[in-house]
Amino acid sequence: MNGARALIRTLVDAGVDTCFANPGTSEMHFVAALDDVPEMRGVLCLFEGVVTGAADGYARMADKPAATLLHLGPGLGNGLANLHNARRAGTPMVNIVGDHATGYGQDVFLTSDIDTVARNLEGWVGTARSSADVGRLAAEAVAAAAGAPNQIATLILPADASWSDGAEPAPARAPAAPATVPAVRIEEVARVLRGDGPVALVVGGTATREAGVTAASRLGAHTGAKVYCECFPTRLERGAGVPALERLGYLGEFVQMQLEGIRHLVLVDADLPASFFAYPDKDTVLVPDGCEVHVLAGPGDDATGALEALADAVGAPADAATAQELALPDRPTGELDPETLGAAIARLLPEQAVLVDESATAGLWTSLATAGSHPHTLLTLTGGAIGYGLPAATGAALACPDRPVVSLEADGSGMYTLQALWTQAREDLNVTTVVYNNHAYDILNLELGRVGAGEPGPKAKAMFDLHGPDLDFVKLAGGMGVPASRPTTAEEFADAFEMALAEPGPYLIEVGLTSRF
Amino acid sequence: MNGARALIRTLVDAGVDTCFANPGTSEMHFVAALDDVPEMRGVLCLFEGVVTGAADGYARMADKPAATLLHLGPGLGNGLANLHNARRAGTPMVNIVGDHATGYGQDVFLTSDIDTVARNLEGWVGTARSSADVGRLAAEAVAAAAGAPNQIATLILPADASWSDGAEPAPARAPAAPATVPAVRIEEVARVLRGDGPVALVVGGTATREAGVTAASRLGAHTGAKVYCECFPTRLERGAGVPALERLGYLGEFVQMQLEGIRHLVLVDADLPASFFAYPDKDTVLVPDGCEVHVLAGPGDDATGALEALADAVGAPADAATAQELALPDRPTGELDPETLGAAIARLLPEQAVLVDESATAGLWTSLATAGSHPHTLLTLTGGAIGYGLPAATGAALACPDRPVVSLEADGSGMYTLQALWTQAREDLNVTTVVYNNHAYDILNLELGRVGAGEPGPKAKAMFDLHGPDLDFVKLAGGMGVPASRPTTAEEFADAFEMALAEPGPYLIEVGLTSRF
Repeated sequence: MNGARALIRTLVDAGVDTCFANPGTSEMHFVAALDDVPEMRGVLCLFEGVVTGAADGYARMADKPAATLLHLGPGLGNGLANLHNARRAGTPMVNIVGDHATGYGQDVFLTSDIDTVARNLEGWVGTARSSADVGRLAAEAVAAAAGAPNQIATLILPADASWSDGAEPAPARAPAAPATVPAVRIEEVARVLRGDGPVALVVGGTATREAGVTAASRLGAHTGAKVYCECFPTRLERGAGVPALERLGYLGEFVQMQLEGIRHLVLVDADLPASFFAYPDKDTVLVPDGCEVHVLAGPGDDATGALEALADAVGAPADAATAQELALPDRPTGELDPETLGAAIARLLPEQAVLVDESATAGLWTSLATAGSHPHTLLTLTGGAIGYGLPAATGAALACPDRPVVSLEADGSGMYTLQALWTQAREDLNVTTVVYNNHAYDILNLELGRVGAGEPGPKAKAMFDLHGPDLDFVKLAGGMGVPASRPTTAEEFADAFEMALAEPGPYLIEVGLTSRF
Repeated sequence: MNGARALIRTLVDAGVDTCFANPGTSEMHFVAALDDVPEMRGVLCLFEGVVTGAADGYARMADKPAATLLHLGPGLGNGLANLHNARRAGTPMVNIVGDHATGYGQDVFLTSDIDTVARNLEGWVGTARSSADVGRLAAEAVAAAAGAPNQIATLILPADASWSDGAEPAPARAPAAPATVPAVRIEEVARVLRGDGPVALVVGGTATREAGVTAASRLGAHTGAKVYCECFPTRLERGAGVPALERLGYLGEFVQMQLEGIRHLVLVDADLPASFFAYPDKDTVLVPDGCEVHVLAGPGDDATGALEALADAVGAPADAATAQELALPDRPTGELDPETLGAAIARLLPEQAVLVDESATAGLWTSLATAGSHPHTLLTLTGGAIGYGLPAATGAALACPDRPVVSLEADGSGMYTLQALWTQAREDLNVTTVVYNNHAYDILNLELGRVGAGEPGPKAKAMFDLHGPDLDFVKLAGGMGVPASRPTTAEEFADAFEMALAEPGPYLIEVGLTSRF
């Protein structure tokens, strides 16, 4: 069989059965081979930033990699920002990047250095030199992606390796299991927790699923340690019945308040708390002076197991965790503003919803209000590269067809990868998108003051102002086959949100807000 | 003064007075400094692929670089595909990529290896280590970009180099002038032209302006050599009064017909003719067997001067060039299809229009029909990375406010960087966009057959089919403040096109077509 067919067969045999794709001529044999391997689902996206963001959202929910199909260096480039987010999320992914045939040799048109860009992702990179290589490399790529720590694997596939015969599927390889944290390290941290505090834990990475937050909550309840979630978790289980972890703040000053007086900081698959950006005359590392830092678990470790072992070691009772109580706001009335919007979403969020949050400044109130909603899964922007939300919601919906997906999106971020709406319509995905349209890159209005750049002039202000023309997301959604509306009161919003959740297929609700900063 | 202000002052002093921007927090001081340097115009774009594509279109028309302002590695990544096109076009450009402050040191959130991605563009790359570096590096960057051969210069600007004092603007540096082609090389090629033919010239790069095509036409008329333009020229002057150069075809088989029997091929700042992609059992290099290849001029050479010297050397009279006659099709009536659409555009294209062509398969007829239109400038997709057209039209309109810009766009390509329409509306640019909506990546339907991948199954076919849902570009344009319509007959189209050209500001016309392949 040819390389393309062996590749898809190998992927499917290794459990990778969804491929987000925007192919070109060099990927034609891969596309043709989709019909030879019925188990592989191909999902067309209209831009590679959607492809890679959808693969990220899919993998966060499916707990296994999706494949992407990208067209040479420019296709990989278009996908790079969401690959950056996926890398920071620790998401497994298998990129198939088509290339010119190995014998092509001409430096024209689409020729570029793909390998260099792929290596930027710090994951596995391989290039098939012939069709005979393809099966083995594909199996290696999946194992690299799915093993601990998860990584982004990129297989560069020259067209002739795809079209030539002589290929065979390779059997799936066992991915590396997470490393058990040594007992001595557990005991070291246990001593810290038994000693003089105050102590704070920061939980992130793979440890923010239900088992992880439960163990962290046990530890907090039993030892009095403060327990935080990292600022932008890959996947956080939260809501009623799940122990609640307070997230570290976005603003460095807020984190400094959260960690004030802490003498011992324990990192559980989380980075050292640092400000999102550096500022003149502000600290970048947010650990209090004199505070000792201890690493319980890092990437590739069984961080959840370590938390549980630690809870056992300090004698925390199995039922010590404090489950969040159901705390639904009243159904709001009157003006539609960030607070009433947040209350409506929090009240109506269905059980087991997947909440994809890229709502930026205006969504802060929603984030607070949903803490007591029905239990749900939260996905956040792990790498700061905006444009992840709509694609990630698309991928999450494909991974979890039985769960409603609620996508909270900002106007500025949403415009980055708006094409995701088309795939939502095409695949009839149950995604309800709420666009918080404050007609601004409002976070930059906030940040401009914080960086100490002085009073902004009109040209500077214009760089954050998305008025003139106003973006009309109802029309934009309609242009891609997604029905949409623009409620103007809290009651209208709640009705529209409820209706959108009840109906199958995608729906978009635009909410007009005013800039706050 | 701080680094940001010195940077913008240096850029402006070196003639770079337009900056396409999508800034973030790390670029805030640059943004604030825009108000300190009134000569610099900042143009906000909603996605970095628009930023870099607009800078490409601007520079092709302004004959000088624009600056871009990009937000760290992900911003550069989002701009990479259109930077690839710009690199292949030989476009000068100065990218300013913000980065974390030099002392930041934490590997979190937006940290990535910017330098590696920037070097992928094979141009000048520099990093400011302190504010004192900024002026000098900015002057070097502009000189590198604007010198011969033009290149993409990328200045990585850590936030503290931007915000710290101690910077001074640097005086502009003289860019490298194009190299005069040695007389001995001119004489070698002159001997070829005087000898036994047949001879063909392929003219590209900087030699497709009016002086270059005139000299090439003189050569063809006097010596009988065939004269072709490269397949995807950066900027081709054409239409009535300008000598017409036939473009090499996109399909290898077509190029082989064009070059059949040629014994000597002369390259004038053009790549060796090669197929766009490799195919099983098809040639990739399209030079006939036994044909000798001669390079008259390469990148960085004064290719137009070389053509003129060559025409003199072979004794071609100064007036030997054959100017294209005005040949306007009748105003079409009846069904709106690629032929009548092309006829209407060809008939109504205004004098000195800038025609930005990314219309792919359905636009072939327009391309043929406009050969005899009023004189105009054609910009094409030089690097094969789709999504260049709408941004390039935006940049071209900013460079040439007195010239109408006509943007011919395909549905698939248009969806890549549709956000450009918003900037067209915001800046009130005189751009008329025609979307050839055949509801397909139709070129892939064509290519699937050509690569010999067999009869496509339903899953393969679905990868090229943009029905379900149909894209509605009238709504999409309206969502970004661009008025639009969807004529259904040739008469209606001609009326709409005429009206759009007559009115100031942007307008979009969607034309529904059927897939051909």
